[in-house]
Amino acid sequence: MELVTIADVRAAQDRVAGVAVRTPLIPAPWAPGPGELFVKPEMLQPIGAFKIRGAYNKIAGLTADERARGLVASSSGNHAQAVAYAARMFDAKATIVIPDTAPDHKVAATRALGAEVLLVPPAERDILPRQLVEERGYILVPPFDDGAIIAGQGTIGAEIADDLPDVDLVLVPVSGGGLISGIAAAVKALRPEARVVGVEPQLAADASESFRTGRRIAWHPEQTHRTIADGLRTVSVGVLPWEHIRAHVDDIVTVTEDEIRAAMRALVVQGRLVVEPSGAAATAAYLSIRDQLPESARTVAIASGGNADPAMLAEILSAG
Amino acid sequence: MELVTIADVRAAQDRVAGVAVRTPLIPAPWAPGPGELFVKPEMLQPIGAFKIRGAYNKIAGLTADERARGLVASSSGNHAQAVAYAARMFDAKATIVIPDTAPDHKVAATRALGAEVLLVPPAERDILPRQLVEERGYILVPPFDDGAIIAGQGTIGAEIADDLPDVDLVLVPVSGGGLISGIAAAVKALRPEARVVGVEPQLAADASESFRTGRRIAWHPEQTHRTIADGLRTVSVGVLPWEHIRAHVDDIVTVTEDEIRAAMRALVVQGRLVVEPSGAAATAAYLSIRDQLPESARTVAIASGGNADPAMLAEILSAG
Repeated sequence: MELVTIADVRAAQDRVAGVAVRTPLIPAPWAPGPGELFVKPEMLQPIGAFKIRGAYNKIAGLTADERARGLVASSSGNHAQAVAYAARMFDAKATIVIPDTAPDHKVAATRALGAEVLLVPPAERDILPRQLVEERGYILVPPFDDGAIIAGQGTIGAEIADDLPDVDLVLVPVSGGGLISGIAAAVKALRPEARVVGVEPQLAADASESFRTGRRIAWHPEQTHRTIADGLRTVSVGVLPWEHIRAHVDDIVTVTEDEIRAAMRALVVQGRLVVEPSGAAATAAYLSIRDQLPESARTVAIASGGNADPAMLAEILSAG
Repeated sequence: MELVTIADVRAAQDRVAGVAVRTPLIPAPWAPGPGELFVKPEMLQPIGAFKIRGAYNKIAGLTADERARGLVASSSGNHAQAVAYAARMFDAKATIVIPDTAPDHKVAATRALGAEVLLVPPAERDILPRQLVEERGYILVPPFDDGAIIAGQGTIGAEIADDLPDVDLVLVPVSGGGLISGIAAAVKALRPEARVVGVEPQLAADASESFRTGRRIAWHPEQTHRTIADGLRTVSVGVLPWEHIRAHVDDIVTVTEDEIRAAMRALVVQGRLVVEPSGAAATAAYLSIRDQLPESARTVAIASGGNADPAMLAEILSAG
């Protein structure tokens, strides 16, 4: 299995330039020392999450003929909007398969970007896309288990190494593993001394358990769905991400629900950045379990997404 | 009276590089067309507002001997923290005069940055700094009525023109006028076709009235203090800003308190950016009084600051 290289990531950087926002590192002097924390605000991307980088890189790398056949993706979250947004930029038809348990506003947001939405029972969310590929010739845009997706997310790692050449530690939320795979591939190529550490909710710690046991383990959806971090409920990392994690990632740690909530509040109130729970997990590790992380003078935490429910945000702000 | 030039702004850019965040333009596809809106997220600066640009440029431009004499500023808001923050980077002593009516957390934040805080009755806020200059030889760092401050804020305009060379319209909140002066000086030099329009609360519309009458008019503090936009309560623009406004600014429009609140909510929920009321005023003009603005295909709104009270944020989020 071929791992993504820094050349793949650099090619992806050329593709996503002008589409994905070149996010700056935001100093977080409010975070306790020793050392400095910087937040990479990926929720400032057009659809509110880093997912646009991978989806756009994948679709831009297809031939015009492939794009003309139509694209299909399965997602209840930010990947749905990313594929719809990127497809529209190429005037390509996008069909998004969404579990019928997803909140209405996510369905509406995906439709508003011009995609056709097919609502299915959760058990069929991965079956229907494959059928559409076989029967209608659509091209599948997977959420994480794909080299072009990983290379697209890796542009975040290249930007970090370019902006902060002496970075020591990069903290990345882990769900399917595409984000940490791309970031680790880029960071380890450009700054081998830096550590890359994944962060998961304790309630959805399949990747952490996999990392510790050395075997790719899946949890049950009933377990992973307990966390408020709805972007991190994937039951196991992908096959290709798993190989990247084994090759490049230094550790995967876990945070509690309370630690995620506290980090959300800190990012909003002190960092002026609106994050969803998944987007606060990496910062939560820095703020709450620093003793479990490698020593670091310069740490970057990825704020991966910001599609938070306003009522939940209000509640977290009122709690302080 | 000499106006700030693009050469002054370019020199300021060299000074503030690595201190002020080089903020990207954030596309706001959620804002209604025709045309595109981009938000310049200045609340992502270290102290939560653009003020760091001017304060740092001013202090960096002093001689080492001048800095060794100590710095003094008068402010109840973001300028206080900007001067404290910049002074600390030069190991210079900063004394900040703050009206004793200011909220405790602002006083604490300024002290936490290492500044000496002197609390005075509001009527003495401009007298004591001048005394300290005369008696102790301190150097005054004014909030807006100063060429180096204006050139520092102008780095925002240079970044806009560099990032979006075909920008048509830049919307800027107006208080003392330093921000719009610098931005207009830079934008008009680099992109003369672009319009620069100021935005004020209707309840603190001294600059708008001045612009319409052609005379620099002051309102009474009892009037300007009615607006929730506490960063825009200055009773008149400064002398030097007034000359820049007359030379470069195309219009100054006003927005209501409700329009400011609605823009705050849109920036938080849809833009994932935490702004204080002053920081939402420019976006409010785009969202609510587009018919009063020049036609534009590409508009930039400055989100000037993000030091919002969490309780107010929670209330605005709950209201939607």
